[in-house]
Amino acid sequence: MCGIVGYIGNEQAAPILLDGLSKLEYRGYDSAGIAVYNGEEIDMVKSKGRLKVLSELTHGGETLPGTLGIGHTRWATHGSPSDVNAHPHFNQDKSIVVVHNGIIENYLKLKKKLERHGYVFVSETDTEVIAHLLDYYYKGNPLEAVTKIMHRMEGSYALGIIFRDHPEELYAVRKDSPLIVGHTKGGSILASDVPAVLRYTRDVVFIENEEIVRMTTDSMEFFTVDEEPIEKQVTHIDWDVNAAEKGGYEHFMLKEMYEQPKAITDTFSPRIKNGQIEIEELGMSNEEIRRIRKIMVVACGSAAHVGHTSKYIFEGLSRIQVDVDLASEFRYRDPILDDGTLVIVISQSGETADTLAALRESKKRGARVLGIVNVVGSSIAREADNVMYTWAGPEIAVATTKAYSAQLIAVYLLAMKFAHVRGEISDEGLKEMLDDLQALPAQVEMLLNNQENIQRFANRYLAAKDVFFIGRGVDQAISMEGSLKLKEISYIHSEAYAAGELKHGTISLIEEGTLVVAVLTQENLYKKMISNMVEVRTRGAFVMAVTVEGNTEVEKAADYVIYIPETNKYFTNSLAIIPLQLFGYYIALGRGCDVDKPRNLAKSVTVE
Amino acid sequence: MCGIVGYIGNEQAAPILLDGLSKLEYRGYDSAGIAVYNGEEIDMVKSKGRLKVLSELTHGGETLPGTLGIGHTRWATHGSPSDVNAHPHFNQDKSIVVVHNGIIENYLKLKKKLERHGYVFVSETDTEVIAHLLDYYYKGNPLEAVTKIMHRMEGSYALGIIFRDHPEELYAVRKDSPLIVGHTKGGSILASDVPAVLRYTRDVVFIENEEIVRMTTDSMEFFTVDEEPIEKQVTHIDWDVNAAEKGGYEHFMLKEMYEQPKAITDTFSPRIKNGQIEIEELGMSNEEIRRIRKIMVVACGSAAHVGHTSKYIFEGLSRIQVDVDLASEFRYRDPILDDGTLVIVISQSGETADTLAALRESKKRGARVLGIVNVVGSSIAREADNVMYTWAGPEIAVATTKAYSAQLIAVYLLAMKFAHVRGEISDEGLKEMLDDLQALPAQVEMLLNNQENIQRFANRYLAAKDVFFIGRGVDQAISMEGSLKLKEISYIHSEAYAAGELKHGTISLIEEGTLVVAVLTQENLYKKMISNMVEVRTRGAFVMAVTVEGNTEVEKAADYVIYIPETNKYFTNSLAIIPLQLFGYYIALGRGCDVDKPRNLAKSVTVE
Repeated sequence: MCGIVGYIGNEQAAPILLDGLSKLEYRGYDSAGIAVYNGEEIDMVKSKGRLKVLSELTHGGETLPGTLGIGHTRWATHGSPSDVNAHPHFNQDKSIVVVHNGIIENYLKLKKKLERHGYVFVSETDTEVIAHLLDYYYKGNPLEAVTKIMHRMEGSYALGIIFRDHPEELYAVRKDSPLIVGHTKGGSILASDVPAVLRYTRDVVFIENEEIVRMTTDSMEFFTVDEEPIEKQVTHIDWDVNAAEKGGYEHFMLKEMYEQPKAITDTFSPRIKNGQIEIEELGMSNEEIRRIRKIMVVACGSAAHVGHTSKYIFEGLSRIQVDVDLASEFRYRDPILDDGTLVIVISQSGETADTLAALRESKKRGARVLGIVNVVGSSIAREADNVMYTWAGPEIAVATTKAYSAQLIAVYLLAMKFAHVRGEISDEGLKEMLDDLQALPAQVEMLLNNQENIQRFANRYLAAKDVFFIGRGVDQAISMEGSLKLKEISYIHSEAYAAGELKHGTISLIEEGTLVVAVLTQENLYKKMISNMVEVRTRGAFVMAVTVEGNTEVEKAADYVIYIPETNKYFTNSLAIIPLQLFGYYIALGRGCDVDKPRNLAKSVTVE
Repeated sequence: MCGIVGYIGNEQAAPILLDGLSKLEYRGYDSAGIAVYNGEEIDMVKSKGRLKVLSELTHGGETLPGTLGIGHTRWATHGSPSDVNAHPHFNQDKSIVVVHNGIIENYLKLKKKLERHGYVFVSETDTEVIAHLLDYYYKGNPLEAVTKIMHRMEGSYALGIIFRDHPEELYAVRKDSPLIVGHTKGGSILASDVPAVLRYTRDVVFIENEEIVRMTTDSMEFFTVDEEPIEKQVTHIDWDVNAAEKGGYEHFMLKEMYEQPKAITDTFSPRIKNGQIEIEELGMSNEEIRRIRKIMVVACGSAAHVGHTSKYIFEGLSRIQVDVDLASEFRYRDPILDDGTLVIVISQSGETADTLAALRESKKRGARVLGIVNVVGSSIAREADNVMYTWAGPEIAVATTKAYSAQLIAVYLLAMKFAHVRGEISDEGLKEMLDDLQALPAQVEMLLNNQENIQRFANRYLAAKDVFFIGRGVDQAISMEGSLKLKEISYIHSEAYAAGELKHGTISLIEEGTLVVAVLTQENLYKKMISNMVEVRTRGAFVMAVTVEGNTEVEKAADYVIYIPETNKYFTNSLAIIPLQLFGYYIALGRGCDVDKPRNLAKSVTVE
């Protein structure tokens, strides 16, 4: 995720660009840049760090004259945050400049081709490929060049483009990344998202996939990839500015929940090629993968819950033994590691202090460390032997949702890869799993759309004091995350328990009306779970069950049932967590809690 | 633990013996027996099973004539529960008969000696040795024979003895096992504990260590081991019968807490010989111990908490990697075991259904299984490859205390043994640890005597809704048990957390006045723990700390501090748990809960 803006009109462009970017900082904030046509050539200023740095460098934009420009605020994907990797990016003679939000999946192939043609690259980004590719295809007609590169690029992109030799025009195009355009008084503006333009206009056009827009001071023309003109509808935005920043959602948490289908797709899609899983950044040969004797997953909070899920999946699929440890415990445990141990550390921010310390401890003891991290260039990403990024984009709400979901996908991919390389699953088995994996985004979408039912149910439990989440096997791991979602934002004391363990003490807390959330997604454990549900229900509990479509048997033992669609048994976590996230959210909402910023908590825990 | 009774007088002995035994069934109930002198010889009836079986066999004692007799209700230690292992035990010509409560630690050596002299043994018990040893030393003077065997026996014992050729006398003696005697109308009675005699007298004499009593119908004479007569005080008992069964304690749980010093001693003492740890029943050669590559501890409830403690101790001391798993999870997990894996299952009752299933699953997969079990001859004891018994005696209260403490000792002994065999600790190191181990019972005693302070503190928190227990490393394991003790009997929702993990969500539940119990017994983690205490205290928590004497630094961050004496860092759990048990008990008591039988719970969970 990144934010892009563009302006062409009668006003000075740079201050408008900076103002627009400031409304998009939630989309990324590790570096920023702007490029403005000054009447002769294109000036560019960019810098690592928050937008404020760029703003100071340019005196709020004043030092950059010109009325045509583009800007960018970055959330690093390819290439760590740095001045040179910041956008915009030029072609070689600085006659074309580009800002980009998205990922060009085949950029390495394109880069090689361009290098063979003599192009020299200065950054590590995928975006620079676009500038050079435009240069390669540009023969005097910008629209033609844009459509040509669209045919060559795979992946997702929203682009803003300036051609020095066409200073009356601003081009933009999108595929799988958002883009809107609108008229201002005496100009035209483009942006990744509504908040950036609200100060200038409330009438916007949403660009659809593979549509191109050519903007001038007083016109906007739209084209298909075949250069055919199209008509577009104008949408009037009546959200307030605050809501607009959250894409119309009441909270970042809700917005980010709804971004999960995209986070999931973005995390698996670049790693599935020709029906195979390719995780280049893993940096392990098949021989090395076969030699792994043990995996140690070390993390904190929700990432540790992903670790618990991963234990079932790695052990089940690849038959490699897995230990899961909290980072704050692992680092002081004097852990026993050997050269057959792969340590996997998981962290959204890549800055979690305990996890970072665990990584260093593991390296010191000679283990190989793989990081699963969301923030490119973060400390964990830099220090791990290898990094596998989750492509969830920046997460603002303290309670994680989309980063967690993306971490699950990373784990699925790794486990499938390891299992396939080690001969534990066949080509056919892999294919079936990949089909199920690729069906997840639509299934998550469907579950998200069930929000009203869950909100109605949640409203009945706003006064709950104690809630218990129970599950067996991987469902216990789901329960842990479901419980955490509820407790951290609603301040209700909820606790997750292995269902079979309840009767060894905790069941004495069950009384008339206690809410018990039972997760049962594993067919071989349905009967055992139903027994446990009956146990608590007999003692007065109200049982809400999350199970898989078709398991109607559960209705005998539950008071309320949420069904998730069928999927591979190793992927159920990705679906079962959705209603639990929604449940936690609506309970907190109903109780009037500060959902995005729960008391006592910070987004990234950089202290021990 | 077993119960013994004896009677000599004018009434028929058998019904009195059966009645007395019925009041001692809390001390053991796996088999029972009585022996009565019928005027010519000694009749004996004994049977496996509850006392009721014996009562039915003898028509409530009516079928056994005679006014001199002894009886026994058994809690198996040496030899599984069976008719032949039940007490009393005869010498060869049935002229001497004995009942015994305790353990003769050097019985194997004595047995060999007696076998060389032609004695033939029919049972597997240590007690039968006593009968034959008395026979060996008896030259017409019972008192002389009794003092002689006292010099030869090591261990603990309370004995009731009849010599056929002295039918006007009943002998008894004790060392480290309880024994009382008293006059009834027209007779004398002896028993392990007060409830057995209350129906007949309220004036009793407590026999002290190595004292002998010779009783007749109307006299009681007391002797030292040197046959010198001594005077004894009579104590008047004014407890009611109900309280008497609990040894004057209000609940079995409290009584069992106070039995912990003995349970600890009984568990380690037979296994320390000449400064070495000998665990004969382990059945593993030093070579086999050296070959262990991994230990998997599988258990439920408090026994699983012992498992968590054991991870720190095994890994720290012996550098063998340990996984801990809940039995209900393990059995369905498709666990990865190899031939270098030792599976240790822990269960008080030896009948815990999930643990038994886990044991079977492990054996099926070819792993070696060691059981740590409290009930001799239980299913787990029978099916495990080897059994190491905890000698805690029968536990009646649902919330475990003394069985848990005895399990910890078993784990310490195993870990020290393994570490020593594998060369990870020196002879000197072992010696120091054994010194610390042997100091534990007195230290536990001292902590138990601090009950009033804890009760006073607990009374301030009777209305608590949520309590959090935090610790790092082994202190987290202690926290888990402390939390369970509180929640299972007081119905307060308490939860244990790794202290470093709180800030990843649960800290949002902390508000003004929330009680947080911090356990910090590991010096290298004091500072980290104090930081975590400050974190919760800043947010309004009231912090009660359990730490080691000398760590006065903690007082800056705690509102109430309980100090435990210094001990080896691996043994702190045995001390820190005592105040937490007392805390749970007094909270439950103050809230009017049914402490011994909390709602929804059973003592031994024989269902899944």
